[in-house]
Amino acid sequence: MRTATSSWDGIPVIKTGDDYVESLRGRDLDVYLFGDRLVEPVDHPIVRPSINALKMSYDLAIADPELATAHSDLIDAPVNRFLHIVGSPADLVAKNKMQRRMGQLTGTCFQRCAGLDTISVLHSITYDIDAKHGTHYHARYLRFMAEAQRRNIVIGAGMTDPKGDRSKRPHEQADPDLFMRVVKRDAEGLYVRGAKAHMTGGLNSHFICVMPTMNMTKDDTDYAVVGMVPLTAEGLTYIYGRQSCDMRAMEDGDIDAGNARFGGQEVLVVFDDVFIPWEHVLMDGEHEFAQEMVARFTSYHRASYVCKTGLGDVMVGAAASIARQNGADHASHIKDKLVEMTHLNETIYSSAIASSHEATQLESGIFMNDSMLANVCKHNVTRYPYEISRLAQDLAGGLMVTLPSDADFKNPKTGPLLDKYLQGRSNRPVEDRRRMLRLIENMTLGRNAVGYLTESLHGAGSPQAQRIQILRGMEVDKKIDLAERLAGIEADPKDAGE
Amino acid sequence: MRTATSSWDGIPVIKTGDDYVESLRGRDLDVYLFGDRLVEPVDHPIVRPSINALKMSYDLAIADPELATAHSDLIDAPVNRFLHIVGSPADLVAKNKMQRRMGQLTGTCFQRCAGLDTISVLHSITYDIDAKHGTHYHARYLRFMAEAQRRNIVIGAGMTDPKGDRSKRPHEQADPDLFMRVVKRDAEGLYVRGAKAHMTGGLNSHFICVMPTMNMTKDDTDYAVVGMVPLTAEGLTYIYGRQSCDMRAMEDGDIDAGNARFGGQEVLVVFDDVFIPWEHVLMDGEHEFAQEMVARFTSYHRASYVCKTGLGDVMVGAAASIARQNGADHASHIKDKLVEMTHLNETIYSSAIASSHEATQLESGIFMNDSMLANVCKHNVTRYPYEISRLAQDLAGGLMVTLPSDADFKNPKTGPLLDKYLQGRSNRPVEDRRRMLRLIENMTLGRNAVGYLTESLHGAGSPQAQRIQILRGMEVDKKIDLAERLAGIEADPKDAGE
Amino acid sequence: MRTATSSWDGIPVIKTGDDYVESLRGRDLDVYLFGDRLVEPVDHPIVRPSINALKMSYDLAIADPELATAHSDLIDAPVNRFLHIVGSPADLVAKNKMQRRMGQLTGTCFQRCAGLDTISVLHSITYDIDAKHGTHYHARYLRFMAEAQRRNIVIGAGMTDPKGDRSKRPHEQADPDLFMRVVKRDAEGLYVRGAKAHMTGGLNSHFICVMPTMNMTKDDTDYAVVGMVPLTAEGLTYIYGRQSCDMRAMEDGDIDAGNARFGGQEVLVVFDDVFIPWEHVLMDGEHEFAQEMVARFTSYHRASYVCKTGLGDVMVGAAASIARQNGADHASHIKDKLVEMTHLNETIYSSAIASSHEATQLESGIFMNDSMLANVCKHNVTRYPYEISRLAQDLAGGLMVTLPSDADFKNPKTGPLLDKYLQGRSNRPVEDRRRMLRLIENMTLGRNAVGYLTESLHGAGSPQAQRIQILRGMEVDKKIDLAERLAGIEADPKDAGE
Amino acid sequence: MRTATSSWDGIPVIKTGDDYVESLRGRDLDVYLFGDRLVEPVDHPIVRPSINALKMSYDLAIADPELATAHSDLIDAPVNRFLHIVGSPADLVAKNKMQRRMGQLTGTCFQRCAGLDTISVLHSITYDIDAKHGTHYHARYLRFMAEAQRRNIVIGAGMTDPKGDRSKRPHEQADPDLFMRVVKRDAEGLYVRGAKAHMTGGLNSHFICVMPTMNMTKDDTDYAVVGMVPLTAEGLTYIYGRQSCDMRAMEDGDIDAGNARFGGQEVLVVFDDVFIPWEHVLMDGEHEFAQEMVARFTSYHRASYVCKTGLGDVMVGAAASIARQNGADHASHIKDKLVEMTHLNETIYSSAIASSHEATQLESGIFMNDSMLANVCKHNVTRYPYEISRLAQDLAGGLMVTLPSDADFKNPKTGPLLDKYLQGRSNRPVEDRRRMLRLIENMTLGRNAVGYLTESLHGAGSPQAQRIQILRGMEVDKKIDLAERLAGIEADPKDAGE
Repeated sequence: MRTATSSWDGIPVIKTGDDYVESLRGRDLDVYLFGDRLVEPVDHPIVRPSINALKMSYDLAIADPELATAHSDLIDAPVNRFLHIVGSPADLVAKNKMQRRMGQLTGTCFQRCAGLDTISVLHSITYDIDAKHGTHYHARYLRFMAEAQRRNIVIGAGMTDPKGDRSKRPHEQADPDLFMRVVKRDAEGLYVRGAKAHMTGGLNSHFICVMPTMNMTKDDTDYAVVGMVPLTAEGLTYIYGRQSCDMRAMEDGDIDAGNARFGGQEVLVVFDDVFIPWEHVLMDGEHEFAQEMVARFTSYHRASYVCKTGLGDVMVGAAASIARQNGADHASHIKDKLVEMTHLNETIYSSAIASSHEATQLESGIFMNDSMLANVCKHNVTRYPYEISRLAQDLAGGLMVTLPSDADFKNPKTGPLLDKYLQGRSNRPVEDRRRMLRLIENMTLGRNAVGYLTESLHGAGSPQAQRIQILRGMEVDKKIDLAERLAGIEADPKDAGE
Repeated sequence: MRTATSSWDGIPVIKTGDDYVESLRGRDLDVYLFGDRLVEPVDHPIVRPSINALKMSYDLAIADPELATAHSDLIDAPVNRFLHIVGSPADLVAKNKMQRRMGQLTGTCFQRCAGLDTISVLHSITYDIDAKHGTHYHARYLRFMAEAQRRNIVIGAGMTDPKGDRSKRPHEQADPDLFMRVVKRDAEGLYVRGAKAHMTGGLNSHFICVMPTMNMTKDDTDYAVVGMVPLTAEGLTYIYGRQSCDMRAMEDGDIDAGNARFGGQEVLVVFDDVFIPWEHVLMDGEHEFAQEMVARFTSYHRASYVCKTGLGDVMVGAAASIARQNGADHASHIKDKLVEMTHLNETIYSSAIASSHEATQLESGIFMNDSMLANVCKHNVTRYPYEISRLAQDLAGGLMVTLPSDADFKNPKTGPLLDKYLQGRSNRPVEDRRRMLRLIENMTLGRNAVGYLTESLHGAGSPQAQRIQILRGMEVDKKIDLAERLAGIEADPKDAGE
Repeated sequence: MRTATSSWDGIPVIKTGDDYVESLRGRDLDVYLFGDRLVEPVDHPIVRPSINALKMSYDLAIADPELATAHSDLIDAPVNRFLHIVGSPADLVAKNKMQRRMGQLTGTCFQRCAGLDTISVLHSITYDIDAKHGTHYHARYLRFMAEAQRRNIVIGAGMTDPKGDRSKRPHEQADPDLFMRVVKRDAEGLYVRGAKAHMTGGLNSHFICVMPTMNMTKDDTDYAVVGMVPLTAEGLTYIYGRQSCDMRAMEDGDIDAGNARFGGQEVLVVFDDVFIPWEHVLMDGEHEFAQEMVARFTSYHRASYVCKTGLGDVMVGAAASIARQNGADHASHIKDKLVEMTHLNETIYSSAIASSHEATQLESGIFMNDSMLANVCKHNVTRYPYEISRLAQDLAGGLMVTLPSDADFKNPKTGPLLDKYLQGRSNRPVEDRRRMLRLIENMTLGRNAVGYLTESLHGAGSPQAQRIQILRGMEVDKKIDLAERLAGIEADPKDAGE
Repeated sequence: MRTATSSWDGIPVIKTGDDYVESLRGRDLDVYLFGDRLVEPVDHPIVRPSINALKMSYDLAIADPELATAHSDLIDAPVNRFLHIVGSPADLVAKNKMQRRMGQLTGTCFQRCAGLDTISVLHSITYDIDAKHGTHYHARYLRFMAEAQRRNIVIGAGMTDPKGDRSKRPHEQADPDLFMRVVKRDAEGLYVRGAKAHMTGGLNSHFICVMPTMNMTKDDTDYAVVGMVPLTAEGLTYIYGRQSCDMRAMEDGDIDAGNARFGGQEVLVVFDDVFIPWEHVLMDGEHEFAQEMVARFTSYHRASYVCKTGLGDVMVGAAASIARQNGADHASHIKDKLVEMTHLNETIYSSAIASSHEATQLESGIFMNDSMLANVCKHNVTRYPYEISRLAQDLAGGLMVTLPSDADFKNPKTGPLLDKYLQGRSNRPVEDRRRMLRLIENMTLGRNAVGYLTESLHGAGSPQAQRIQILRGMEVDKKIDLAERLAGIEADPKDAGE
């Protein structure tokens, strides 16, 4: 029988990063990549770097517990900060600092933020639904979280529906499955059908939390569903998204990959009438909460893009390193470009931690990031990494895109020629220069450019989504009032609020 | 006899904004404007708006004590926050919020921040000098501050020397007075000669704190002096700086001034062998502390430029108001520009309050803004107000610069023609439109453009000054290390630190 | 009797700049400034600099005839290029180079471009109307132009109507006069009522050409009127627009004005049933040509904003001069900023002359600027002068906005103090520094900032107007086709053109 | 015996694109890619798209001879414009339009511009050397060009030396071969040793013209060499540079490559004592001409970057197409972004064709692009394609980087799921959407991002190289003079020219 308890079958208590990797083995998931079903994703050279990146969140908790763990009142024990329920603004600030550190250590998307922000938003949303409807979602949520903390698992956020024709609402789509919906309910639970796209680290999680991607109307009631689904549930199919330069992970040698150890991951997850026991259902039809859920989620999640400042730190370091190897690090324009990169990177950082410091308390007792500043943070993230990336390419020089392959360096005829002619400053081996050029390529054009650039643009909502939120939150009438007072205009109540 | 006590002569205990204005009367200062010695600056139509702006800091303390006052442990009483010694990061954040509010209420520079930031830096610097040299500056500082808080005075910061030839150090200048220096010392005190330029609100203060403008070497010892000088001291001459459109304050009517009530002020103050009693000397020759003093001052002061977000709020409101009056507020490009203005403004705000929240404690016990983020804040201030201003002019339309004078509206022949032809949306009087256009002109070209634009560029250090600080603080070697690890480069100790 | 011939009464044949100034005297126009009717505008200290700027177009024709004159086939004689009918792309390029030179020589708006561009567009529009309607506008146009060239006059463009509520068409306005319209027709001519706003150099012209400001529908037929009106016509009232810092021209001394000799001018011109003889009517009711007339006008006129590169040259020179006087000209960041200013300035120049070189021939035989590139030029003009201005202020230093008045320099007490303390590099007098600071203030905040900044934004159409034209001209379907071919997509005729 | 005549052995007369492809076969070059010597590069799936791109220059000459051919006075016959000697500004403008068209048709670097610009610069440089030294280079040059035109060959530009330690001159390098140099001279010719990096289309040419990469001093005399080397010369080794996503060309199917038919190419070419007969030597030791040669080359070549506007057209089209497929093309922010992309693209175009129209004649009789405007063009190219690319990614949506592989679409289990869930607007097949997303990926992250982005940054000199040229050409003293005149400053001859 399928129960909430059986959902946890096969998920061990995870203590270390290695435990985590082991927990992903042998799950016999239906995963497809390059047209093949993967026998064991954990050992696949393209998948593994994405697991390594997420594993770092476990390793960091051991290496730096002050940064990456927190005390959970729920289970009265320290827990990984990626599973911690936000108790204060300081918790949010600490989260941001951990995210930046994770970015520094992996140079890529470590895939655990969306899940954390989902946990955060569900605390208050389940509380608020219960308050209105007399439901019992919040208690279910707390029970789930206690177990999740005890086992130290990874929760993935299944938010983005494929959306089909963007000018139509969910129930209006030609194919009703283009947004996830409840197709059946019975005594034990409900069944969902649909797909979740762009699922960051979807394959590297233990549970997926499915939830609505946008506001829902009365006619979309069956689309207003939140639930926790174990990755091993029946009816799930995972299709791996391909990334720029993904094939380099399949080659011999670790140089051309640029960042051989760490990478991001996105999968499309198809839900073919997947069962969710009632105990793991956290919303079912309360459509009027969908919009607020998304709004709160974005308040948390848009500040989480502070992780990109960790990648920005790597970009600054990489650009400085290659300039030094080229012997150009003392040129004033080189230093000036490093300063500009840093300035932009720290501007992003400011908005994120300001948003966290200025968090406000919700009814359920937890704190939420300041929404305006979180949107400002994310909006800067849609711009500055592109400019930082351009400046890094500037300092790298053209060799970054004309450098022959590692195999050519190993070839007995061409290897010595390349080592002779690609020598930079004499005290550094050519291999160091190649490695640094490949890292910059990796982050600006290659596999991790997906995380550093395109995800910075579209993750947690595309630029226009932030502009809409800024428009909503900008309190234009208050500002008009300020201006009119200074201009000596007598307030005209008839004109207000138009 | 001139003593520290007599320095306080004539300075009343100030409770209200009106008290403050009264405290400035009858001081018989040697003030020059347009070639004339002013009989009573308080009543001069150009000077008065600058007094009004500063007066708002007193009014706000009464209207919103939670925001604009704080409890002083020094005198165990509430004090104006502009005289409060920073006790925590929360104090700095509250300061920033008060500064934004002051900007919203005045639409100009209210001239009290540099003095506040001077107070802050002197707490720790006097403490540190004493620790090294066994001097007693810190006790003097505390006694002065207790009295300043009791009387609720305004302290002006006299920092910027004229500097002469910028490629030369103070002692190398053709004229040794181009930096302020001690010309004589006796039993009662010392005498300084020189000038302080760009003194914000110099005339609207009760005391000027003179201090070095940059690092000093052993040969510049006589230039390393800090002291408190009452505005009524002998030997002081004040020369008023002129501002764009300053003459409009001399005209009849309040419309063309744009913001008739509030304005900024800068004066050049010449010190002709001005006496400072020992009790009010807080540095005398400890040249090695000058650089650190400036560095700490800028950490405080560059975050104080958050005040410009208050002006930015006014700009957003003014642009929205004029668009509404033109009947264009529903156009998508208009809304988009308001969003962009807000986004830029809130980005500035983020960096300031992030810098305050992330303040760290100094030896003397007080807190100092995070230096990197304060520099990032100020650097954004050197860019974004210009773009916000451009966007406001865009929404204003060309009429902002072709609008006839108020006198033409009052002329019986031209007045009706103007009212007929300059009608916008029918439910608003033409006068409202004029007022709003004049406000935008005031802030983007006129008198308060000085504060909103040029001061944003040069106050607290020109853009390059921030870039130098960012370069110093960016920890490039740590970032190179991050990049090299990810690239798989074995760290090479010989190359480090080059 | 009022005839076309009598329109020319009192307009002499003008040969020199001095002739031009004399031609403006004694016209007894109804001009208002600061509420007063001006007795003789030519001698008014605010008006005169604007006349001087326009006068330069006469002086330059004598000093550099190759640049500023051209051979007119119409009268078979050399004419001022500002009256020349465009015969080739080379004519348009020469025009642009003359405009840049005029900007260099005056540092302001010289007010003669809109008239020139009006001449250009009327050649082809009258031709096209005649071709469709069998009217005789083109011959009238040629006769008028021949006389204009013979007398060497200034034609002002009366284009911008007040517009009232921007969401309504001309005939829908509450007050029908908010767009200019024909109120009466008789055997001799027609009568117009309305106003033309923002008239650049309106007062410094001999004739005003009134014309529609935007597209007209059948219901707006009476608003579709073009005609030539002498400034001395009955029923005209001129109201002078005030500019930032305009009062400085009224002060003693020439320093604080920044650019004492040259300034811009805009007037509001009210037409109270002003008569136009048929011979000078060039459109009357052919409403369907209004849109095309405006479109062609903007093709010419948006490239005319190349004049701002002449002002940009002055900005670069001023910034370089003040940096040199400060002794900072060898700093790498200073040079870098001068390069950036130049780069932006030359980018504007590129688009203008590219637009002229790529001009195409119209049915009437004359050439018209490439519309896309002209719009691109103007759109860059709405952005780059603001950034150039910001950079110039950066190099100027804060003294630009805190410098005391010239009167303070002349005061026997304060003058010597100022000369002592404001000394920069020793080999240059302080006065030179002041003059240069005042020039930068003049162009970035003061009187000529109106021309360099706000007019750059709104003249020839606000930014959104260019974006609309770029949208119209961008041929998106052709570009989609290019992309689809490269992507290997089979063209789908059903989807085209959506 | 190796002679100039035998250099031409094996090079046929090429008439069509197919002839061109055939001419590359069977050359038995020493080419390495991924560590292997390629048997026949022409048939290699990675090499072939780069050949196709260059082939388009032959196809276009047949399809559109007006655009892509010109009459050669040298052989009195029409020749491909890529081999035409510039006779007028119009020739340069036509070249630019052909380059934009080539960009539109290939979406990548077609590799033939550097060779063309080399031809152009050698005409005047050989002429000028002869004039000074009495040498006979120009006649040699003309004979070579006549034959090149007759056979219709591709000439590659071998300019960029590896450079080693950038702080040292050629003769100071630890390894003297890091710049190409003459190692031997005999009766028949000379021998060069060294390498040329980043050789665009190096493998797809018939001759390489080697030439100095920067200014040369007397001590670098042996490095001042120009000569024509056939690709089949003894001693040449070609090592292929790898590009982002290069392996996708090795996969089945044409979708994931994004632009399967066209790609760029860069190779490192090593010269191991390669012989050049005297008849093909065009400079040998006249080191003082190296700098001028580079300067003229960049005047031509920096304007050639107009080709990127052709790619920009594809980007605009691709972004519009994907927005249309997503059903989002009517949103105002989408249209606004397309306008911005177009505006930036046309700004680049302006500077290029302005530079060509404004070309000036050299002593040898040919015309050279205006240097300032060519530098401005290239400098804009280092910025705007990055922003255009960011905007295209914005319109594409996140699916661009999470789309599964083509193989997953072909898999019978996952294919139908993907087709179901990735449906956009219903009237377009999912495959079209995939193709368009892959094209945008190709140009912004993938193989052709090398050409559209990084090459835009570094080709023809990195950004700082343009800034140095702008600094040299900006005539700062003339501009200071303009400013000083307007400010009323008496010119001070002693200060001039500092």
